[in-house]
Amino acid sequence: MSNKISKIAVLTSGGDAPGMNAAIRSVVRTGLYYGLEVYGVIRGFSGMVEDDIRLMESTSVANIIQRGGTILKSARCKAFFTPEGREQAYNNLKKRGIEGLVVIGGDGSFTGGLKLSTEFDLPVIGLPGTIDKDLYGTDFTIGFDTAVNTAVDAIDKIRDTADAHDRLFIVEVMGRHAGYIALYSGIATGAENILIPEAETNIDDIIAALSEKEKRKKLVNLIVVAEGDEFGGASEVAKVVKEKLPNMDTRVSILGHMQRGGSPTCVDRILASRMGFHAIECLLQGRKNVMVGIKDDKIAYTPLEIAIREKDKINDEWLRMVKILAS
Amino acid sequence: MSNKISKIAVLTSGGDAPGMNAAIRSVVRTGLYYGLEVYGVIRGFSGMVEDDIRLMESTSVANIIQRGGTILKSARCKAFFTPEGREQAYNNLKKRGIEGLVVIGGDGSFTGGLKLSTEFDLPVIGLPGTIDKDLYGTDFTIGFDTAVNTAVDAIDKIRDTADAHDRLFIVEVMGRHAGYIALYSGIATGAENILIPEAETNIDDIIAALSEKEKRKKLVNLIVVAEGDEFGGASEVAKVVKEKLPNMDTRVSILGHMQRGGSPTCVDRILASRMGFHAIECLLQGRKNVMVGIKDDKIAYTPLEIAIREKDKINDEWLRMVKILAS
Amino acid sequence: MSNKISKIAVLTSGGDAPGMNAAIRSVVRTGLYYGLEVYGVIRGFSGMVEDDIRLMESTSVANIIQRGGTILKSARCKAFFTPEGREQAYNNLKKRGIEGLVVIGGDGSFTGGLKLSTEFDLPVIGLPGTIDKDLYGTDFTIGFDTAVNTAVDAIDKIRDTADAHDRLFIVEVMGRHAGYIALYSGIATGAENILIPEAETNIDDIIAALSEKEKRKKLVNLIVVAEGDEFGGASEVAKVVKEKLPNMDTRVSILGHMQRGGSPTCVDRILASRMGFHAIECLLQGRKNVMVGIKDDKIAYTPLEIAIREKDKINDEWLRMVKILAS
Amino acid sequence: MSNKISKIAVLTSGGDAPGMNAAIRSVVRTGLYYGLEVYGVIRGFSGMVEDDIRLMESTSVANIIQRGGTILKSARCKAFFTPEGREQAYNNLKKRGIEGLVVIGGDGSFTGGLKLSTEFDLPVIGLPGTIDKDLYGTDFTIGFDTAVNTAVDAIDKIRDTADAHDRLFIVEVMGRHAGYIALYSGIATGAENILIPEAETNIDDIIAALSEKEKRKKLVNLIVVAEGDEFGGASEVAKVVKEKLPNMDTRVSILGHMQRGGSPTCVDRILASRMGFHAIECLLQGRKNVMVGIKDDKIAYTPLEIAIREKDKINDEWLRMVKILAS
Repeated sequence: MSNKISKIAVLTSGGDAPGMNAAIRSVVRTGLYYGLEVYGVIRGFSGMVEDDIRLMESTSVANIIQRGGTILKSARCKAFFTPEGREQAYNNLKKRGIEGLVVIGGDGSFTGGLKLSTEFDLPVIGLPGTIDKDLYGTDFTIGFDTAVNTAVDAIDKIRDTADAHDRLFIVEVMGRHAGYIALYSGIATGAENILIPEAETNIDDIIAALSEKEKRKKLVNLIVVAEGDEFGGASEVAKVVKEKLPNMDTRVSILGHMQRGGSPTCVDRILASRMGFHAIECLLQGRKNVMVGIKDDKIAYTPLEIAIREKDKINDEWLRMVKILAS
Repeated sequence: MSNKISKIAVLTSGGDAPGMNAAIRSVVRTGLYYGLEVYGVIRGFSGMVEDDIRLMESTSVANIIQRGGTILKSARCKAFFTPEGREQAYNNLKKRGIEGLVVIGGDGSFTGGLKLSTEFDLPVIGLPGTIDKDLYGTDFTIGFDTAVNTAVDAIDKIRDTADAHDRLFIVEVMGRHAGYIALYSGIATGAENILIPEAETNIDDIIAALSEKEKRKKLVNLIVVAEGDEFGGASEVAKVVKEKLPNMDTRVSILGHMQRGGSPTCVDRILASRMGFHAIECLLQGRKNVMVGIKDDKIAYTPLEIAIREKDKINDEWLRMVKILAS
Repeated sequence: MSNKISKIAVLTSGGDAPGMNAAIRSVVRTGLYYGLEVYGVIRGFSGMVEDDIRLMESTSVANIIQRGGTILKSARCKAFFTPEGREQAYNNLKKRGIEGLVVIGGDGSFTGGLKLSTEFDLPVIGLPGTIDKDLYGTDFTIGFDTAVNTAVDAIDKIRDTADAHDRLFIVEVMGRHAGYIALYSGIATGAENILIPEAETNIDDIIAALSEKEKRKKLVNLIVVAEGDEFGGASEVAKVVKEKLPNMDTRVSILGHMQRGGSPTCVDRILASRMGFHAIECLLQGRKNVMVGIKDDKIAYTPLEIAIREKDKINDEWLRMVKILAS
Repeated sequence: MSNKISKIAVLTSGGDAPGMNAAIRSVVRTGLYYGLEVYGVIRGFSGMVEDDIRLMESTSVANIIQRGGTILKSARCKAFFTPEGREQAYNNLKKRGIEGLVVIGGDGSFTGGLKLSTEFDLPVIGLPGTIDKDLYGTDFTIGFDTAVNTAVDAIDKIRDTADAHDRLFIVEVMGRHAGYIALYSGIATGAENILIPEAETNIDDIIAALSEKEKRKKLVNLIVVAEGDEFGGASEVAKVVKEKLPNMDTRVSILGHMQRGGSPTCVDRILASRMGFHAIECLLQGRKNVMVGIKDDKIAYTPLEIAIREKDKINDEWLRMVKILAS
């Protein structure tokens, strides 16, 4: 029964994402509003094993909605992969009377939460906090919009210098298993080609198109590559281009970890606020082991195991649009 | 029949919005891709009356996806309000063989397009280009996300100085008839109160809440007001606060026209690109007098007159969340 | 003798300025490096009177170099204007053994520091922390570069919409007694006119120039006005323009308090770091009642009373350049 | 005699830098103000050889002061390294009656300008346009302040994620022969170590310091490395760190070409405006083969060969400050 829950904990885990702090704030304040005690676990499952767990107040989350990173920190935790580690972790919750857990993170974090829930019958609610947008059951994940805008800002800057020099730039963005950052940032910056894991990369076609453009003196070109593209990252693509088109002035830029940081965008702050709010309502309603997502601008619940396992399909229309708009 | 259309025109009208250039680019390039001639009308209906209409090429829209403003410019046009003016405008299209028109703008612009369409049987497609998000039939309008992020950035800065001085800041954002910019930017910056035209403003409640906060020494406060709130703008609110709570250090800031400018966010660039793409497909399919919108991440068509007349309802859950999260 | 000092305090006072946190960090860390105890006074002289004084550690100033506002907060203090108030304030320092004070602020703050120093023989070092750049003896003040860049970003956005509509924008920036923000941001945004307290405003000349531009269809215009211009602020200028040139599409924007906030620029962070560093060296060398400034990229010391009283002259060449470049 | 000059040309060459457009605008508008004809050479010396030279008007440089890149484009030019190429280039100027040349670029560009000047007695004025700040005779170069702020923004974002994970980040910034970008951005982001070509890198000291920090659980660390540091770039440093301190969570980020782009800061726009203004005055006064610099906020002229050959010394005080402030 929902009315039995009186103490809950919240943690962030896995790669950090902008908006995690807004989510923490929302979980804590909504929890306090409903009369719960809310605990923050430091460094994810690591802090749960090591008993680094702190009582949160309203002021603990003041002035953080606009900050990147996570005040609860994140870490990998080897101990948690062992049954003993998890038992220790659970006992640290139990001794405080904590009866529900909100996990903000990606698929690895949800897997950890699910194990805890299965082994100790602890209700776990997942909030999708990952810049990769690779979870099933939600249109957006916390951090994705910020990461994409960071990539777009950087590529806009690179485009300035590409234009000044009539260069081909091959830019690598994050996304080991999902091409969403590449797809969104590529469309938004007018990239000629976007290489993602979800679609086969035909390097010969790309070379042919570049070669044709070289002939008609369209010399400024931009290729955006997801780090997890099956052909390889930006450096592999550049290698082939330089070999086949040696006269082209070709440069590589790998945007890297800056995509994880920065003040969250409005979209991410609101998403995180709504999700944190519903995480508490979820627990109070007696739900367990679901991810809180947003589908078609409405709250949607997806069992954690499905959120981890299933994948959304990339919209074909978008890929077709890329070709037409960059001509 | 769709296959008869071979020449179209595009214009921007009304208040400008970030992303209009991305929409123009998309209309022009998609049109060219389908073998159409595409004309750009300068200064909206004004240029149509005055015959300031130019043939667009692919390079005419190069390197503009990231720019604020509109390369086609916008203007109010008195002549267009007369039948003679509209006839002259139509004749300027007709003499070039233009058989379809894409109007990027808000409700005033759509009204103009609808008149032209009704009086001269010209297919008109509307793209929602307005920072206000006040059109029915689309979840987002081109420019809204950028405007809201601009407001959020500014309020974040104001919050710095509010925190340093333990001040109450009353910030006015744009939105004459719609409170969406206020609602979104207020939630995203953790505002204590958000005053919008769509919800009644109870100034006594606000004063009571501020007074209570003053007693428990919570001195940093933020009220976000839509310019069209029925109680009045930020200055009216401040007047009452200063009268009732003279010890409170109260400041007003009116964000103003900067909310209309700036490089569009990723959301706005993609939205504009998708909508421009579908505007052409619409015309080719023989549709007329509809607005291209995005509902639940899918393209949706709404008759222009309904897009203008109907209004979406503000989500009550959001208003409830504001109270809880800012506590 | 310098080697006698072992405990010092630091405070921020007056209007806050971006980079104050970087200065606090530098004072604290340099002090600790030299083996001093460093105290932070909360809310400026107000906290000194009310005994809100805290011992600072290295971690107290971790992760603040990039933050706007001031972690020590700032406030006006009536009590400090009385001899009793100041005596109480001094006693609160004395009882802790504090023998030196670093005041980060503008002329009002320096006046307070000077009084304290004169009445109680307490060495006071001033750091110029004000967005107005209105202190004598330093080429830059902490916060000025950030404030100017914030103004420039906002005016760039306004220029987008001005261009789209062929409008005249009259933008008011901060600067009650000094026109530097207006001068710098006006040049950097290509303003046609810049109105500042240091130069007489000839409204007839401005009207004549606008009228001439209207005739040759140069319709996008930008006037930047310092709030303290002797003719009046942006609204007064707009009133005259609208009366004399009723056909011109004229808008006013007052940038307001956002100019005080935001993450400091590189220039301000380095300036603040250098000044904080030298404030400690100053105290250790036995200096007193001087402001630490930067002249020609070298550290320069100016007696506080001169820093407050004297004024730098605006460079005539710059004013001449404005006319030529905006043509 | 100065009054004989009536036609001049301007070009940008070498790596592009933010603010080049502001400099072009200033050269063109100041030239026109003094009654000169001003030509823009496209793609630097390349366009001079290939006769891609265009007459500039006031409107040619409208609305570019805020744009990154260069509207005149830049390129490397092999032909210009041959006497025949240079003769052809000069003839293309001569046939238009061009009697003076403004070269905006770095040392390579100045070398080209100097050759042209020596061989054909053409007055050449250099404007220091390079993000590297590696020219003698000026306190700042056009583009440096923007590049540094871009680096600072990126490192701030990286710091968010470093803090969330208690990581060591090794960030590489541009600067093949000069460490100024590393030095400035490192101080401004509170880096623990800054590795630059101008100071010897003692990797053992760095390892020892990191090891000591690991022991006292200070786990968030930042090392900023100039790409031209004599020890090697970020990857080489990381290799040693990972070998010696395998438990440390170490990541590398190479900021790359984004440092060259983006809208110029206020400092760069004003610098470029002043320098462009004085380039024309220089030519009118009959000066030749000098670089226009700013020393101690005053215009300073340095013979081009000295500007190229000499080097400024890094301020030792700054290096000392780094150690103290990052503790």
